Amino acid sequence: MKTIASINNPDIKRLKVLQQKSRERKKQDCFVVEGVREVQRAQAAGYHWDCVMVEENALNMEWVKSFEKSNTPIYQIESDLFEKISIRSGTEKIIGIGKSKKHPLSALQLSDAALIVVVEAPEKPGNIGAILRTAAASNIDAVIIADPKTDLYNPNIIRASLGGVFQIPIALDRSENIIEFLIEKKITIAAAALTTNNVSYNTFKYQPPCAIALGSEDQGLTQKWLNVAKPILTIPMNSKIDSLNLSVSAGILMYEALRQNNRLF
Amino acid sequence: MKTIASINNPDIKRLKVLQQKSRERKKQDCFVVEGVREVQRAQAAGYHWDCVMVEENALNMEWVKSFEKSNTPIYQIESDLFEKISIRSGTEKIIGIGKSKKHPLSALQLSDAALIVVVEAPEKPGNIGAILRTAAASNIDAVIIADPKTDLYNPNIIRASLGGVFQIPIALDRSENIIEFLIEKKITIAAAALTTNNVSYNTFKYQPPCAIALGSEDQGLTQKWLNVAKPILTIPMNSKIDSLNLSVSAGILMYEALRQNNRLF
Repeated sequence: MKTIASINNPDIKRLKVLQQKSRERKKQDCFVVEGVREVQRAQAAGYHWDCVMVEENALNMEWVKSFEKSNTPIYQIESDLFEKISIRSGTEKIIGIGKSKKHPLSALQLSDAALIVVVEAPEKPGNIGAILRTAAASNIDAVIIADPKTDLYNPNIIRASLGGVFQIPIALDRSENIIEFLIEKKITIAAAALTTNNVSYNTFKYQPPCAIALGSEDQGLTQKWLNVAKPILTIPMNSKIDSLNLSVSAGILMYEALRQNNRLF
Repeated sequence: MKTIASINNPDIKRLKVLQQKSRERKKQDCFVVEGVREVQRAQAAGYHWDCVMVEENALNMEWVKSFEKSNTPIYQIESDLFEKISIRSGTEKIIGIGKSKKHPLSALQLSDAALIVVVEAPEKPGNIGAILRTAAASNIDAVIIADPKTDLYNPNIIRASLGGVFQIPIALDRSENIIEFLIEKKITIAAAALTTNNVSYNTFKYQPPCAIALGSEDQGLTQKWLNVAKPILTIPMNSKIDSLNLSVSAGILMYEALRQNNRLF
């Protein structure tokens, strides 16, 4: 097993570039994931690895051996260096460089019972991650990100999702293509908006197959989504604050749709 | 009106200390709030101001005049300097230094119809802010923070709440005192936990007065809460991801309790 102690090691330099640069992640089709739980979730979901970097004192973890079986290179990282390359505090002592998957809309397999979430152009990694975490924790069948503004494998998305990003079907595409896809598959589009005179989210019946669509943090859904949505939903709010956090809204809608369909396990 | 152009101006130095140091905010009983909407919300809620700092080109805003009426000192800040003192990007051109309120449990007025949220020792400003935002947007009557770990007037809490922190009754105290208060007032304590064999959040009837209690991001509720709670609630999740983001959980529970009580406006 190779031991790395220098910040100037080429593998460490590559890691840092991949942590920081979306462009490099895309070019290399790679991502960086830190933390035992998150690495395990990617592994369980069948992701492949370029390498895993393990802090020298964490090498005795039983499950690290599973990487040996798959012939994944394991690098032992000296403690001081691990501190420097880690972007998380705490006791997480493993960093993996994994191979990204593609997320074409055409690969999405949806049954007639599908309940899915579409988010148009979300920007904040914390929100995107929290939505993926909620979708993975619940029985939501897939998440589609329309006109993505942020790299799906952004380390903060992976982290905020607790690795949920690896565990659920995700598709990325332009809004126009997604709308065409949903209409062709006869999937109801229920769009969340802040405008008034809408259907309250709790009176609408989420008859599957159904896509719950939400817009970006600042702008909400664009007109192209509102034009095809039926109904336009609203989460009732009072006059003091007229909007909710995006991931909170998504969570309320997902759990209401699942509750109505007796899909809360 | 005083114009400030130098970063070494004593008012600017004080602002920076208050932005950064919880200790100083507590010592001076002051907070810093940035953004038109947020300042307006604090103003509407009756907060008092030490001063407001307005970017020189934003002085013509009509509502800035309302500060003149209340004899609040208004400082005109030159554009370049405003850029330096602003912690938000974008077009928000006002910063207020406000006087904090106290949040004693004894000041909390709750009716028999009250639905409230208790969060024990939450740590992340983004979560605390999003919970306050959801509570302010919905018809939740109050938020109690037990054993607070983070200054309520942390700029990131104010920001994530969109100013909701100013708009709803909030109490801060030790868990023991809050539990005693809730029991004495005969308020049901429904506690959210990740342990199994609990009551599903959607089958429990949130009969007011009722407090929904949630724990910290990492640890959940401590035993002292679980000991007195009846019932212990769970939000059903599958085995892939076994927890939700704290503010998402709180949002799902708040809206379910309001939905059941026909309080979605």
